Amino acid sequence: MNFIEEYLRIRKHSEQICEPLQTEDYVVQPIADVSPPKWHLGHTTWFFETFILKAFSANYQEFNPEFNYVFNSYYETVGARVIRTDRGNLSRPSVNEVYQYRAYVDEAMQKLLSCPVDEKLTELLILGFNHEQQHQELLLTDIKYILGNNPLFPAYSKDWKDATESVSGENMINITEGIYEIGYKGDGFSFDNELSLHKVYLPHYSISANLVTNHEYLDFINAGGYQDFSYWHAEGWDWVKNNQINAPLYWNKIDGLWHHYTLNGLQKLNFDAPVTHISYYEAYAYASWKGLRLPTEFEWEIAAQKFDWGKRWEWTESAYLPYPGFSKAPGAIGEYNGKFMVNQKVLRGASVATPQGHERITYRNFFHPHLRWQFTGIRLAK
Amino acid sequence: MNFIEEYLRIRKHSEQICEPLQTEDYVVQPIADVSPPKWHLGHTTWFFETFILKAFSANYQEFNPEFNYVFNSYYETVGARVIRTDRGNLSRPSVNEVYQYRAYVDEAMQKLLSCPVDEKLTELLILGFNHEQQHQELLLTDIKYILGNNPLFPAYSKDWKDATESVSGENMINITEGIYEIGYKGDGFSFDNELSLHKVYLPHYSISANLVTNHEYLDFINAGGYQDFSYWHAEGWDWVKNNQINAPLYWNKIDGLWHHYTLNGLQKLNFDAPVTHISYYEAYAYASWKGLRLPTEFEWEIAAQKFDWGKRWEWTESAYLPYPGFSKAPGAIGEYNGKFMVNQKVLRGASVATPQGHERITYRNFFHPHLRWQFTGIRLAK
Amino acid sequence: MNFIEEYLRIRKHSEQICEPLQTEDYVVQPIADVSPPKWHLGHTTWFFETFILKAFSANYQEFNPEFNYVFNSYYETVGARVIRTDRGNLSRPSVNEVYQYRAYVDEAMQKLLSCPVDEKLTELLILGFNHEQQHQELLLTDIKYILGNNPLFPAYSKDWKDATESVSGENMINITEGIYEIGYKGDGFSFDNELSLHKVYLPHYSISANLVTNHEYLDFINAGGYQDFSYWHAEGWDWVKNNQINAPLYWNKIDGLWHHYTLNGLQKLNFDAPVTHISYYEAYAYASWKGLRLPTEFEWEIAAQKFDWGKRWEWTESAYLPYPGFSKAPGAIGEYNGKFMVNQKVLRGASVATPQGHERITYRNFFHPHLRWQFTGIRLAK
Amino acid sequence: MNFIEEYLRIRKHSEQICEPLQTEDYVVQPIADVSPPKWHLGHTTWFFETFILKAFSANYQEFNPEFNYVFNSYYETVGARVIRTDRGNLSRPSVNEVYQYRAYVDEAMQKLLSCPVDEKLTELLILGFNHEQQHQELLLTDIKYILGNNPLFPAYSKDWKDATESVSGENMINITEGIYEIGYKGDGFSFDNELSLHKVYLPHYSISANLVTNHEYLDFINAGGYQDFSYWHAEGWDWVKNNQINAPLYWNKIDGLWHHYTLNGLQKLNFDAPVTHISYYEAYAYASWKGLRLPTEFEWEIAAQKFDWGKRWEWTESAYLPYPGFSKAPGAIGEYNGKFMVNQKVLRGASVATPQGHERITYRNFFHPHLRWQFTGIRLAK
Repeated sequence: MNFIEEYLRIRKHSEQICEPLQTEDYVVQPIADVSPPKWHLGHTTWFFETFILKAFSANYQEFNPEFNYVFNSYYETVGARVIRTDRGNLSRPSVNEVYQYRAYVDEAMQKLLSCPVDEKLTELLILGFNHEQQHQELLLTDIKYILGNNPLFPAYSKDWKDATESVSGENMINITEGIYEIGYKGDGFSFDNELSLHKVYLPHYSISANLVTNHEYLDFINAGGYQDFSYWHAEGWDWVKNNQINAPLYWNKIDGLWHHYTLNGLQKLNFDAPVTHISYYEAYAYASWKGLRLPTEFEWEIAAQKFDWGKRWEWTESAYLPYPGFSKAPGAIGEYNGKFMVNQKVLRGASVATPQGHERITYRNFFHPHLRWQFTGIRLAK
Repeated sequence: MNFIEEYLRIRKHSEQICEPLQTEDYVVQPIADVSPPKWHLGHTTWFFETFILKAFSANYQEFNPEFNYVFNSYYETVGARVIRTDRGNLSRPSVNEVYQYRAYVDEAMQKLLSCPVDEKLTELLILGFNHEQQHQELLLTDIKYILGNNPLFPAYSKDWKDATESVSGENMINITEGIYEIGYKGDGFSFDNELSLHKVYLPHYSISANLVTNHEYLDFINAGGYQDFSYWHAEGWDWVKNNQINAPLYWNKIDGLWHHYTLNGLQKLNFDAPVTHISYYEAYAYASWKGLRLPTEFEWEIAAQKFDWGKRWEWTESAYLPYPGFSKAPGAIGEYNGKFMVNQKVLRGASVATPQGHERITYRNFFHPHLRWQFTGIRLAK
Repeated sequence: MNFIEEYLRIRKHSEQICEPLQTEDYVVQPIADVSPPKWHLGHTTWFFETFILKAFSANYQEFNPEFNYVFNSYYETVGARVIRTDRGNLSRPSVNEVYQYRAYVDEAMQKLLSCPVDEKLTELLILGFNHEQQHQELLLTDIKYILGNNPLFPAYSKDWKDATESVSGENMINITEGIYEIGYKGDGFSFDNELSLHKVYLPHYSISANLVTNHEYLDFINAGGYQDFSYWHAEGWDWVKNNQINAPLYWNKIDGLWHHYTLNGLQKLNFDAPVTHISYYEAYAYASWKGLRLPTEFEWEIAAQKFDWGKRWEWTESAYLPYPGFSKAPGAIGEYNGKFMVNQKVLRGASVATPQGHERITYRNFFHPHLRWQFTGIRLAK
Repeated sequence: MNFIEEYLRIRKHSEQICEPLQTEDYVVQPIADVSPPKWHLGHTTWFFETFILKAFSANYQEFNPEFNYVFNSYYETVGARVIRTDRGNLSRPSVNEVYQYRAYVDEAMQKLLSCPVDEKLTELLILGFNHEQQHQELLLTDIKYILGNNPLFPAYSKDWKDATESVSGENMINITEGIYEIGYKGDGFSFDNELSLHKVYLPHYSISANLVTNHEYLDFINAGGYQDFSYWHAEGWDWVKNNQINAPLYWNKIDGLWHHYTLNGLQKLNFDAPVTHISYYEAYAYASWKGLRLPTEFEWEIAAQKFDWGKRWEWTESAYLPYPGFSKAPGAIGEYNGKFMVNQKVLRGASVATPQGHERITYRNFFHPHLRWQFTGIRLAK
C-alpha cells in the first residue's frame, strides 16, 4: 500500500461527501446522536494529529491546542472535551477553519509518510484510515438526518443512488448444524472486536437470501403491527407508545400516500427497495409478526457467503459482547470498542453509506436498539 | 415621519448588527432562550409580511409559504410553527435565503409605503418598527451568548462600547409619599402593557442614583453571598445549588483573576462598570445582603427623571401584571403582551443593546427571574 | 387566653381530622405537594419541640434526635432534612411512634405552660398554634388527594359537609375609587406577610358577591374553553396541553355524566356548589371567557366586608410580594414567608378546610399558579 | 405432589416473610423497582385468581373486580393497570383487605384442588407456585430496600442469617473445551426461558470456586477503582459519575469505618462475607481491575456442579437472549419472559432470599445492568 496515496484518497473522500452542503448544513445537531458535519471533519483530523503526528512527528506544532477540547469524541485518556450534546452549539471554529485544519494536518502527514513507516505507525495509520471511513458513513447518515428533518426537505444530491432489492419472496438458504469458525482471520486490518478467531456451535438454521422490502414492511403496518403489543419487546412497546411511532424514520404520509425522504429529496415510497431506518425493536416486531426471527451474528457470518449483502446494515439478535479472548489495547486506542460492549445490538453487513473497500464479512457494527438514523434493514431467519 | 425612510433605517440596523458575524454564527441556538440570528432576521421580516403585506398589499405573493411555519414565534392565531427549541436545528433556509427574503419583503414594503398610508396600517407599521427594534436588542444578547459560551471566546467586534458607570457610592434620591400617575400618556407609540394611565399611591421611599458596580458585586461574592441561603428566595437558592452558580454569567476566574466576556472578547473584569448578566434572584440576594431592596416598577418610573438610566435593564420587585384597564387587542396582535403576564418580573430602563430612540420611561420589559443573558443590572431602594 | 387549653384544643383537632384514616392512609405521598398525614402530625410537633421546648424548657430531652432530620420541612437554619419528595418513602417512624411523639411533646408543653409565659414565648406559641392550624388545612386537602386519586375512591367520612353556594348570578358590588388601608392592624396574631399596614390607591371597581358555581364553570367547558388558547396565558396553555387538562381536579365523567370526588366519596356533580380545585390558570381563563377578570388582593380585602366568604380560597390576580415595610424576623422563624415571595399568586379568603377562628380578612395564602389540590375558587371582578 | 399442601406451604411462606413488618412497611415504594410488600401479596393472589380460578372454577366470584386494575403487573393481555411507579401511592386496599383477599382466594383454591386436577391446570398451578416463589425473593429484597434506605435503619429481624463465604483466594476450576448441553432437561418445572436444551461450544476456561468477598472488593475501592474510567464500560462510567457511586449499595462509612445495612440492621462490614448489592457495571469493573472477566452463563452452567453456589445471584457476561428454539406460549402466560429479552444481563445461581427448592442450575435470572437491590455477587473467570 502506498500510504500517502491511500491517506489522500480517504481524506479527499470525506470532503467529497460534504461538497453538496451549504455552510449552514455543517453546523447543526438536531439530535444528540447526529454530529455536525464540520465536527466529523475536525474529529477525524484530530485523530491523526493526536495519535500520530504528536507521537511520531518530531517538532510537530499543534494547529490549535483548544481543538483538542473541541474535537475529542469520547477518549477519556486524552482529556476534557465538549459534551456530546453541545457539538451543535458551536459556531466556531468555522467551516473554513476546519478545512484549514485539515489542510495543515494533511501536509504534516504527507511529510511524515514520506519517511520510512515503522510497524507501530503503520498500525495506527490503518486504524486512522478505518476510523475516517467509519465517520464517512456517519457523515452521510447525519447529513440525511439534518436535511430530512428540515421542514423544507432539501435534497442532498440529485445524483445519489439509493439501494435497490430486485428479488423478493421467501428464498431461504439452509445451513447444516456444526462447529464453525467466527472472527477475522486474514492478514489485513480488522477492529479488535472482530478478534479473536474462535469456534461456535450452530444448530441447523435457514436464513433469507433477501432483505425485507418496503412493500413487505407496509403489510406489517397495514396489518396493525404498531398497534399490537404481542409482537414487541416490553421496552420496544414503551418506545412505540412514548414516541408515537407508526412507520420507519423518514416515512411521511402526504394526502394519504406514503412518501419517504431520501438523499434525492422527498419521494414517493419505493415499494421494491429494502426497508430502512427501522430500529431493532421494529426489526424484531416485524420478524415476530412473520412467525420468524432475526439471525444471530454468527448465523449471519457463516451464511453471508451465500447471499448478496451490503445495502443495509442488518440488525441481528446478538447483543454486542466480547469474543472469547478479546482484549483491549492499552491507552486511548483501547477505548475504541470494548467500553461500548453493553446494552447494544450487533449489526452485520454494510450499507449504501459504507465507503468502498470498508465492508468486511466479519465486521461488527453496533447500536442501541432504538436508533434508526443509520441505513438499517431486516433479514429473517428461522 | 417618513415611513419609508424610517422603515429602511430600522431594517438596515438589524443587518448592521449582524455584519461582524460569520455564516455559522447565524445558525446555532445554545440554549432555548437564545434564537439563531438568522431566525431573528427572518422572523422580523415574517412579521411585516404576515401582518402588513398579506393584509394591505393587493396581489402580494408570499416569498415562500413554508416560511410561515419556520418564522412564526408564538402566534397561535397564525398557525403551526417550529417549536422554539428546534430553531437551532434548522440549517435551511440558509443565511443567503434569509437575506433574499428580507430584500423581497423590503421591496414590497417600499412599494406599499409609497401609496397613502391609513391609520390602521400606520398603527401596524409602528408596531412592526418597535417589534424589530426589540429583536435588535435580542440579536445582540443572543450573539453575545453564542460567542461568549464558545470555548474559543471569539470577539464580536473590537469597536463595541460597553456601559460604564463613573459614579458609585450611596447617592440616594428621596421621593415623598403621594398619588402618582403611572403609564404612557403621550401621543407616540407605546405597547399595550404600558396602558392605561392610572394612579398609584406610593409611600415615601429612597432610590439610588447609581447602578451597582462589578466592584460592589464582587464584595458580595467575597463575603460568601452565594453560600448563605438567608439572602435568597427558596427558589433562588435551589437555582444556585442546582446550577452551581457563583458569579454573574460571563465571569470566568482564570489563574485566580476574574475576567468577563464582553462583546470585545474576554477581558479582565472592569471593576467600575455596572454589574450585568445577573438574574432577578441574584439582584434580590444582593439587595438583601446590603439590607436594602429592589424598587417597584412604580417607584422606578416616578424617580427615573432624577437619575441617569439606559445602561442596564434594571430588575424591579414588581411582578409583570396588567395595569388597571388593560385590554388585549383582538386577533394575533393581541397575543403580543397579555399572555405572558404570569411568573415574570418587570425590568425597567434600557441597555447598551437598546437601539437609539427605542427606550422610554414607561417601557415595561419582562423576563423569568432566573434569566441572565440580557444586559440586566441592579438599582437599590429602601 | 388560657394557653394550655388552647394548645390542647388545637393539637386535638389535628388528631380528630385523622380519626377516619386507616394506618396506610397516613403514609403515602402521591405527588410532591401532598405530604403524608403522619408527616404533618410529626412536623407540627417538631415545630413546638424545636422552637419552643428546646429553647425554653430547661433539661428538655428530645424524643428522638433523628426526628429533626425526618420532620424539618424547609428550615435551612435548623439543618439537613429528608428531601420533600421522599416523605412518602418513609415507613418509619410508624404512625404509632408519631402519636407517641405527639403525646411526649404535649406533656412537656403542658409542663412548660403551667409556669409563667413571657412575651417571647407567647409570640412563638401563637405562631405554633397558627402553624398547626395551617397544617390542619393541608391535612384535609392532602387526605382528599390521597383518597380521591385512589382507583377505589374511598370516602373520608360520610359526615363531611362540603361548601354550598345558594345564590348565583351577576350580583356585583361597586367600590368607589380612593385611598384604602391594606394589611393587618389589630392586636391579635397575624403573619409577617400581612404587615405592615399601608395605603393603596384603588380605582373604581365592581366585584361579584358570589363565587362561580360548578354549573357556570361547566358552561365554560361546554363552550370549548379548554380548547381555545385565546383565553389562556401562554404558560397556562402549555400546562393544559402537556397535562391534558379538560376539567377541574376530581371531576370524572362516568357514562357521560359528570361526577366529582368529595370527602363523602364519589358523587354526581353538585351544580350549585362553588367550583373548586381549579388552578389560577383556569380561574384566569374562565374570567377571560366571561369578559371579566380576577380581583387584585387589595380589591378583595376592601370589598370583603360586603360579601360572604370562607368557602373557597379565592385566586386573585396579585402576585405574592412583600408589602411596603415588610421585614423578615431573624433566624429560622424569618424563613416563614419571605423566602417564597416569587412566582406565586395570592389567594384570599378561607375554605371549608380552614379551622374555625383561623380565617382573617387580611390573611394572604399563596400557591404556584398550576396547583389545584387546595379548595380553590373563583370570584370575578371588572 | 399433594397440590393443596404445596399450595398452602408456599402461600404461607409469603406471609411468614412479612410477619416482622409493621403495617406502614407494606405500603411504600421508595424507587420504581421496589414494590410495596402488600402489592406482592396482592399480585401473587391475583395471579391465581386470574389465570386459575376464573378459568377453572365454575361460578367463581371475583373478590373485587377493581383489584384487576390494582394488582396486574405487566400483562397487557389482561387489561389496564396502575402504572408501576404509582404502586406506592395507593393506601387502599389496606393491608387487612389484602390479607382477606388472600384468604378468600386460598379458600377457593383449596376447593378447586380438592377435585381432580387435569394437565393444563397442573401446568398453571406449578407456574403459579414458581411465580409466588419469585415474588418471595423480591419481597425480601424490597423489604431490605424499604428499611435499609430509611434514615432510622430499622432491623427486619434479629434472627436473619446472611450469607457467609468461608473460603477465599484464587481457587480456579478448569474446564476443557468441547460441546456442552445447555438448558433444562428434567421432567420437573422450568421456565420457558430455560428451553430448549441445546448445544454450545465452549473453549477451555477457568472459573473461580469462590465468590468475591467484601474484603477483596474493598481492595478495589481503596485502589481507586471508582475513580479510574479504564475499568468501566462507558455507560457504567456515566452511571458512576451521575449517581456519585463509590461503594456497593447499603455500605455506609460512619466515622471512617465501613458499615453495611443487613436485614439484622446496621452492622460493621463483614469482611469475609461475599460482596453483594453491586451492579453489573461494578462486577465488570472489578473483574477488569483484577485482569479477569465474568463468566458467560454457559460457562457458569457447565462449571456449577463443581462449586458451591446459592448465596448470591451471580452476574454473568451474557446478555439475556432467547435460546435456539425458544417460543412463547400464546396469551398472557407467554408474556412471562420473552418480552424482556433485550438490554438485560443474565444472573445465575440463587441467593439467601431464594426460597428452598426454588433454585436450579439452569435457572436464568435477569436484570438491567445498573440495578443493585438484589443480592447480587461476583464470580470471576478467565
